[in-house]
Amino acid sequence: MESALSPKSIINVAAICGSLRKASYNRGLIRSAIDLTTNQSVTGMSINYIDISPLPMLNTDLEIDGKYPQSVTTFRDQILQSDCFLFASPEYNYSVTAPLKNAIDWASRPPNVWADKAAAIVSAGGGFGGGRSQYVLRQSGVYLDLHFINKPEFFLNAFESPPKFDDEGNLIDLEAKERLKSVLNALKAFTLRLNNK
Amino acid sequence: MESALSPKSIINVAAICGSLRKASYNRGLIRSAIDLTTNQSVTGMSINYIDISPLPMLNTDLEIDGKYPQSVTTFRDQILQSDCFLFASPEYNYSVTAPLKNAIDWASRPPNVWADKAAAIVSAGGGFGGGRSQYVLRQSGVYLDLHFINKPEFFLNAFESPPKFDDEGNLIDLEAKERLKSVLNALKAFTLRLNNK
Amino acid sequence: MESALSPKSIINVAAICGSLRKASYNRGLIRSAIDLTTNQSVTGMSINYIDISPLPMLNTDLEIDGKYPQSVTTFRDQILQSDCFLFASPEYNYSVTAPLKNAIDWASRPPNVWADKAAAIVSAGGGFGGGRSQYVLRQSGVYLDLHFINKPEFFLNAFESPPKFDDEGNLIDLEAKERLKSVLNALKAFTLRLNNK
Amino acid sequence: MESALSPKSIINVAAICGSLRKASYNRGLIRSAIDLTTNQSVTGMSINYIDISPLPMLNTDLEIDGKYPQSVTTFRDQILQSDCFLFASPEYNYSVTAPLKNAIDWASRPPNVWADKAAAIVSAGGGFGGGRSQYVLRQSGVYLDLHFINKPEFFLNAFESPPKFDDEGNLIDLEAKERLKSVLNALKAFTLRLNNK
Repeated sequence: MESALSPKSIINVAAICGSLRKASYNRGLIRSAIDLTTNQSVTGMSINYIDISPLPMLNTDLEIDGKYPQSVTTFRDQILQSDCFLFASPEYNYSVTAPLKNAIDWASRPPNVWADKAAAIVSAGGGFGGGRSQYVLRQSGVYLDLHFINKPEFFLNAFESPPKFDDEGNLIDLEAKERLKSVLNALKAFTLRLNNK
Repeated sequence: MESALSPKSIINVAAICGSLRKASYNRGLIRSAIDLTTNQSVTGMSINYIDISPLPMLNTDLEIDGKYPQSVTTFRDQILQSDCFLFASPEYNYSVTAPLKNAIDWASRPPNVWADKAAAIVSAGGGFGGGRSQYVLRQSGVYLDLHFINKPEFFLNAFESPPKFDDEGNLIDLEAKERLKSVLNALKAFTLRLNNK
Repeated sequence: MESALSPKSIINVAAICGSLRKASYNRGLIRSAIDLTTNQSVTGMSINYIDISPLPMLNTDLEIDGKYPQSVTTFRDQILQSDCFLFASPEYNYSVTAPLKNAIDWASRPPNVWADKAAAIVSAGGGFGGGRSQYVLRQSGVYLDLHFINKPEFFLNAFESPPKFDDEGNLIDLEAKERLKSVLNALKAFTLRLNNK
Repeated sequence: MESALSPKSIINVAAICGSLRKASYNRGLIRSAIDLTTNQSVTGMSINYIDISPLPMLNTDLEIDGKYPQSVTTFRDQILQSDCFLFASPEYNYSVTAPLKNAIDWASRPPNVWADKAAAIVSAGGGFGGGRSQYVLRQSGVYLDLHFINKPEFFLNAFESPPKFDDEGNLIDLEAKERLKSVLNALKAFTLRLNNK
């Protein structure tokens, strides 16, 4: 890794959401994660939400004279400058969404800017709470050379009572917020551990 | 299934390519498959290549008053009217491509127009020849209610000698063409078998 | 398939459980499935529970002069004579159990006696109710040439209240029994559909 | 992790083979890995081959008064005392073998003795060289809390010419030995990196 983190450094997290919906629950998970860092429930982390909607659909014919489209370059720079990643990954048809895969693939183009960094995944949805998408994403992570935390895993069934989200997609469930906090702390610890070289 | 196929019917195959590149090898596999049907190496099948590049990135906020964007409606109609499917699925980062997942997800919106039909997958690429993407696609197929043929599987390492494709991405390898023919015949047989209700 | 089933035939189902525990919930699912056929809630099916505990751990060095150990031969004959399969698959460490994989592998030795038959999977357990094991089993099914039903899928969280099983591992939840009945009817329908050649 | 490794420590690797066959190619990969450490091609590692054939088929009814069978206890102690793991994983029916899954599951029983350690996977076989089994094993690794190295991956098609193994299953291919060496060095580096806490 390029960066030289010390335990006192602020860890910069790039947060990416696989859904482009305004009221997306998964987008709500990222907002909640950001709140946890700004209100100091989780210290030493700064989460930067990265909007992937400007990215064109992946087509390497768009790479002209070895240059990426401007929106791709901007995105790739944000990924490169981050210390680790938080993916909010909804499950569509038992896999990751197209917008998420698209972002992943653009940032993997040479040089792969995901390489050798820590990552965590959170998901909300029906059924398994988005769980199946996480294992597909982890398989991509082998090629991307991402180091995912193993525990805790975070799946949230958004439709069980009591309500987990309000109408704008904000997480309102206290137990889920605690679990989200544990994910962030585990991501912080793993990022620091991988940087102690 | 809506259709009432008899063994004498022509089976309508919708062919979808996961790469948007002009010279895509996987696009070349579909052209080669079409050739096999038009030159009657494979009889009783008509393959319709469906261009997925006009589809917007999936965002259900684009569904207004229960209506899909026009390009989505056109695509969904083509899927609905087909008897079975041929996916040409390149492997990007050990999974399916974003354009392919995007097409899959749009056609799965209610009512799911993939449901209860037969499908086959072919892949070309480096390493395992695209193989890892096929098992991810098959997992999506459980939710989509697609019935994939099991055998023969078709992976093609595009970079081994002798050359498998010419500069425009046309398949030139005779042995691979024979294997492709076997895939089409297996897809035809499984489609007919599933229709004999 | 060897058999020539008509809609009036009784479909012979081989049921296999991935757990060897006496009070296994997954074993309970099979007992409940058998009950559903013997009490005629599901008609036209006969379910034969096959005990896989006598099988030795797979080691092809045990195949001497082209012959399998006696317990393997007995097992393989039972698989060969069945029209379709019901797997009760617990999830251990996010995959299928060793005893189940062992049975699968022995029956896949040449000639593969699973080939070209229909199958369904049911699971009970904590978390996703055994769900992750099912997609691993489906991936093996591609090579085995099994045709799994897609819907309905059956996962049962055994630890949610109200209790789903009694102390002996018998299924006591009525809603789960209805879902199990739907699985059996879907397996029956798919078996018949695949046999109408 | 319990151990306090320094860069000068010898890293103790437990090596496990998924095949019980005497002339197993995957067993040959482990012998070759051991040779690389004993002849000092790879320094600072000691590889201990652990025979999993004595383990009974997993059945938690065999755990009596909270005690494991003797062979299980012995195996679990060996896993616990190792710093990291080398899995030689053949692919049977597109997944890991039953003996390997059995060993994994026994060592995962509470307390899970795999937890929080580094691991690498090597495979030899036909087709993808055992590759499909590796992603199934990695999925189990999430629950086991194993930290797999991402690169280099090691698959070896054992049947391509020139010959890769001799008649006793010894690796004779120099290029494969170099790749195996790279795997061991990557495992060593990742083990040390994870221990610098």
